Amino acid sequence: MRAVCVIGLGLIGGSVLRAAKAAGRPAWGTTRSESDVAAARADGFDILDIGPTLRRAAEEDALVVVATPLTAVRDVLREVAEHAPEAWLTDAVSVKGPVAAEVRSLLPGARYAGGHPMAGVSGSGWSVGSGELFAGAAWAVTAEEDTTLAAWREAAQLALDCGAQVVPTSAASHDFAVARISHLPHVFAAVLASVGADGGPLALSLAASSFRDGTRVAGTAPELVRAMTEGNRIALLDAVDDALGRLGAARGSLASTGGLKSTVDAGHDARQTLDELATAARASATVQLNGTALERLRELGERGGRVVALSAEAAAVELPVA
Amino acid sequence: MRAVCVIGLGLIGGSVLRAAKAAGRPAWGTTRSESDVAAARADGFDILDIGPTLRRAAEEDALVVVATPLTAVRDVLREVAEHAPEAWLTDAVSVKGPVAAEVRSLLPGARYAGGHPMAGVSGSGWSVGSGELFAGAAWAVTAEEDTTLAAWREAAQLALDCGAQVVPTSAASHDFAVARISHLPHVFAAVLASVGADGGPLALSLAASSFRDGTRVAGTAPELVRAMTEGNRIALLDAVDDALGRLGAARGSLASTGGLKSTVDAGHDARQTLDELATAARASATVQLNGTALERLRELGERGGRVVALSAEAAAVELPVA
Repeated sequence: MRAVCVIGLGLIGGSVLRAAKAAGRPAWGTTRSESDVAAARADGFDILDIGPTLRRAAEEDALVVVATPLTAVRDVLREVAEHAPEAWLTDAVSVKGPVAAEVRSLLPGARYAGGHPMAGVSGSGWSVGSGELFAGAAWAVTAEEDTTLAAWREAAQLALDCGAQVVPTSAASHDFAVARISHLPHVFAAVLASVGADGGPLALSLAASSFRDGTRVAGTAPELVRAMTEGNRIALLDAVDDALGRLGAARGSLASTGGLKSTVDAGHDARQTLDELATAARASATVQLNGTALERLRELGERGGRVVALSAEAAAVELPVA
Repeated sequence: MRAVCVIGLGLIGGSVLRAAKAAGRPAWGTTRSESDVAAARADGFDILDIGPTLRRAAEEDALVVVATPLTAVRDVLREVAEHAPEAWLTDAVSVKGPVAAEVRSLLPGARYAGGHPMAGVSGSGWSVGSGELFAGAAWAVTAEEDTTLAAWREAAQLALDCGAQVVPTSAASHDFAVARISHLPHVFAAVLASVGADGGPLALSLAASSFRDGTRVAGTAPELVRAMTEGNRIALLDAVDDALGRLGAARGSLASTGGLKSTVDAGHDARQTLDELATAARASATVQLNGTALERLRELGERGGRVVALSAEAAAVELPVA
């Protein structure tokens, strides 16, 4: 099994390191947080400085996983370029277009496919991570025109080894999608929390689960929220404009007719679609891993398909049946 | 202990009936749902038709609790006016101004104070109710200029007997507050679910907890959401306008400077305020139940205070310490 070298040992990186080791892969990592270094070592993990970490990755032909916030990616990639310029490379950053652009610019020789595990919990740092974090979760693995099948396989196999299911997609499709289901929810949570707090202590005293659930992710560290939302500016603007249009229509309807039927019905239908996806019957598809495999996998990802296993010759994909 | 007569045995009414009986009060109820009648009787509760239910309430000088959606309130109040026009009366409807107006118009002789327990779970009907639903929850009890201390006490005592803490407020303050922390969350959940679903199967396949939590209440039955949101139109318009302003500012900032600092920071601060409220130290205040008690209680409610006990002479109030 290919060795795994994780850069950044927060919630996601720390969980990847634990899961990769639990899957039987040689695994080590690095982080700039001294407290996380101490905690990870105390938990029995092999933690080095970034130079030695990457030189070891080059020596062992390891898969390097960049698991830092977007704002730290450029510095990290410069280190990778210095010590392991032809490494197998993936990442766990929540925006894929900007990371791909940096990799193209700084690491033309890297064997890269982007990744994004769709899992999270409150809190941050090594201590909140878990090798079980990704069990059953979606994990996007991107395939661009210049992505090789070999590089995609390496990133996808790591996701599967961590217990996740692989969603094949392009960086652009990923960024468009997550603007809607991850970045907009953070903006909405922030706006909702602010409007609620503007109601004063009485409003917050009356707040129950609808407000608590709707504002939960506003508790995320602001620098992490800014890194992901500001890093996906174009796609997020599109999602915010869609939301402004829908909220404005609700406002107009409430003011003119007093009714919210179309807003409420559309939301209910959309939420039902989400719930049905979780329980829908699944069809299986097999994609032969040859010349056009990545294109075919992206098509299946666009339809909600997830890769659940990889063999030497083929990818097993599960698709919800409409 | 005063008897309790519950009209409407869905999630809230069914839970009130269970909790009132568990507190040792004589309690019975009525519902138009035949399946809920059967289920409640099978669980050992005393269920009558609405006429006999209300005549018994008049005979036993019971507290009548209207626990139907807002859309059914007028019809129910007409029945109360026919059979028990001077009843002790409260309700569990999520909007207070419109209910108070109906009571004034249809039941000038009723001894009324409005109520709103801030508790809910997914699902509806007798089967999802629980006598524990209100444990530790806020339960607004309204006091207007024409509310008598005796009527307010009856409604507040029921809330305490159900395990809740009483938030004293006016109907207008209540409706303003819940527009922000209950009705706007439902509108936001609907809009967010729709924008996410517009991203297609790929977006929903990638959706994780930020989207699930932010859209959870979009799964609520549309007629219940419409009854509460449309019934609080003026206050909700104010909250939606505030939200549109904040979301528009986020949009402008993202488009012009690429930054979301003020949106994200404000949301984080607001959410922290909510979290701190839950763990804040509490100061105790005692309000003598005499002539100006309701005014004083409303002031404390405005500051986040909750009544945690009532005696013959006084109300014990807990206030978060800023």
